[in-house]
Amino acid sequence: MDLEDTLLMMPGPVPVAPRVLRAMSKPMINHRGAEFSAMYDDCCEILADVFQTKNDIFIISGSGSAGMEAAVGCTVGKDDVVVTLENGKFGERFKKIADRYGKVNPLENEWGYSFDLAEVEKKLEEGAKAVTLVHNETSAGIQNPAKEIGKLAKKHDALFIMDGVTTLGGDDVKVDEWGVDIAIVGSQKCLAAPPGLSMVSVSERAFEAMDEKGELPYYLDLKAYKKSGDKSQTPYTPAVPLFFGLQEALHIVKEEGMPARINRHATCAEAVRAAVAAMGIEMLPQLDEFSQYSNTVSAMKAPEGVTGNDIKKDMLARGITIAGGQDRLSGKIFRIGSMGNVQPKDIMLTIQELEVVLKKRGVISGLGAGVEAASEVLDSLL
Amino acid sequence: MDLEDTLLMMPGPVPVAPRVLRAMSKPMINHRGAEFSAMYDDCCEILADVFQTKNDIFIISGSGSAGMEAAVGCTVGKDDVVVTLENGKFGERFKKIADRYGKVNPLENEWGYSFDLAEVEKKLEEGAKAVTLVHNETSAGIQNPAKEIGKLAKKHDALFIMDGVTTLGGDDVKVDEWGVDIAIVGSQKCLAAPPGLSMVSVSERAFEAMDEKGELPYYLDLKAYKKSGDKSQTPYTPAVPLFFGLQEALHIVKEEGMPARINRHATCAEAVRAAVAAMGIEMLPQLDEFSQYSNTVSAMKAPEGVTGNDIKKDMLARGITIAGGQDRLSGKIFRIGSMGNVQPKDIMLTIQELEVVLKKRGVISGLGAGVEAASEVLDSLL
Repeated sequence: MDLEDTLLMMPGPVPVAPRVLRAMSKPMINHRGAEFSAMYDDCCEILADVFQTKNDIFIISGSGSAGMEAAVGCTVGKDDVVVTLENGKFGERFKKIADRYGKVNPLENEWGYSFDLAEVEKKLEEGAKAVTLVHNETSAGIQNPAKEIGKLAKKHDALFIMDGVTTLGGDDVKVDEWGVDIAIVGSQKCLAAPPGLSMVSVSERAFEAMDEKGELPYYLDLKAYKKSGDKSQTPYTPAVPLFFGLQEALHIVKEEGMPARINRHATCAEAVRAAVAAMGIEMLPQLDEFSQYSNTVSAMKAPEGVTGNDIKKDMLARGITIAGGQDRLSGKIFRIGSMGNVQPKDIMLTIQELEVVLKKRGVISGLGAGVEAASEVLDSLL
Repeated sequence: MDLEDTLLMMPGPVPVAPRVLRAMSKPMINHRGAEFSAMYDDCCEILADVFQTKNDIFIISGSGSAGMEAAVGCTVGKDDVVVTLENGKFGERFKKIADRYGKVNPLENEWGYSFDLAEVEKKLEEGAKAVTLVHNETSAGIQNPAKEIGKLAKKHDALFIMDGVTTLGGDDVKVDEWGVDIAIVGSQKCLAAPPGLSMVSVSERAFEAMDEKGELPYYLDLKAYKKSGDKSQTPYTPAVPLFFGLQEALHIVKEEGMPARINRHATCAEAVRAAVAAMGIEMLPQLDEFSQYSNTVSAMKAPEGVTGNDIKKDMLARGITIAGGQDRLSGKIFRIGSMGNVQPKDIMLTIQELEVVLKKRGVISGLGAGVEAASEVLDSLL
């Protein structure tokens, strides 16, 4: 019986509010008309608050990966060195993208392990046009030290390109204060809009790098986005229904207010961590003083004798979609997203069902410990 | 009073059926799950019939321009020559894209003027890796001779890259028979889905060119699409609501059947041409024996003393969105799209209102001639 009511607790796509879904069923409009332009401007204005930036913001009809490629492909030429910081799948993705456009000087950590800032600085001292960082490594549930990397980038005159795909809209991201030259977010994560759009902020320094580079990619040409954006338009046909959805989702963000939204995300993730700790389950990330557990997705090691995919499969049978591990972490971990419009009751149901699954699998002997721990943390949101 | 019922008679985005709009408001699903894969396969199966091809078909979350760049960017290296055939804005776009990836040997016609096939062959004789053609030049309302260009491409061993953005799904496009190596369509044109997706068919020969080329773009890497497509997935997060909409729109295509759909498009365009001829208005395209008027968008010269934008503006005030001219044709022409699910009554209303506008502007002296001419042509569809 398909009631379309599976609870999505993945790190995106996240559940989309009914009013956002309804917005997407509006009739098509002329994407070169005044109505579209007004919607475009409205979205950019709210996004400026989300990004905490005065930089230009552009909305690309394409996934977060398109935004990542736009950032690198527009600023990095074939002789330019990019320091790519990798401690998960999306850090690796930046490395792969950078490799197609320039020369990569990678720092490759175990996935989920903190970066040694001294090692980062050593890489930058060797000379770099840009450094790429994934603020929140979705694949490993670790939040990397954006502020510190921003300082190092500035000191060594490298562009700071930051994937904020799973922090922007749900966590405290200070694009201007941290000196992020290009920051990228995906629509289907903390902003709780449907998937298919990515948004990027671009600094003056990044535009200068584009002028130096010369030939840019075509569909992801950020200078073309700038030229059209100044007229409140997109250079190519935009995905109109996704803009309808994004605008409505951003109105929800504005109504809640970013401080409350950030607190809700942090508290929900903390509740997940408290719950799994009460069940004796270990977190994947290996932290240091500058890194922290993600406020939007929690990555746990699979308990002995059970794979992450077992847990994912058992949860899905009970109507809740969580995530396993990707690539080299496949089977070894399971992940619970707590991003977007996630509510305490969503966390409570997820933890309750996780307990049942783990008890059936023989991992825990009784029910209630996780639920109680989560409940105590979530009380502050009620 | 915004009743959201403006009649879109532009060459895309086109009106989207209510059942397609409703499909887009379905709750999000896991884009890596079985439900998404089944939807992906269903879309590709219907598209194979639309493209008349056995080649692989991929669905890109991005506009038609993204599809055009994927075609060129994946097959053309910096030392490769591309013959770009231009008689309108989208032919020019192919030239601009090709210029970012390889060496361009352009054939530049007046916009709306037929290509001289002998000139095309001369260009190809100079040696080319690929030739690009816009099957239906949307900016100028002319249909270019794809079959003949396909023969020349084969004879001179060049890849045949064809923009079928405004023919596929509404006109007779024989991808395999004509030897089209990469054909591209946009979702928001004849297929009457929302904007934001492009679909491309890729031949074995095109994949071989990609292997030769080596480094491909990232987001538009068609080899990555192939690898994921074999598992009924996309390489990057797909725009899920647009897939919901596309699937429903393709079901409408299947229910109507392509032969009936092609006939309806051709008849509606013919009705527009008959109507404007009865009003003494000239068509823009300069045809030869191989080219023809577009079956999906009609481009008319603005009558003396009136600009295309005047007509567009007057029509918009009356609730009907038509298009003016783009770039160098701005003001000189006006265009009426008749693509997607366009019905005889949409043409009748558009012509009726056009008559009123032109009479008020002093271009015609009485009403009825255009309506009668359109009506006679449309009778065959009733």
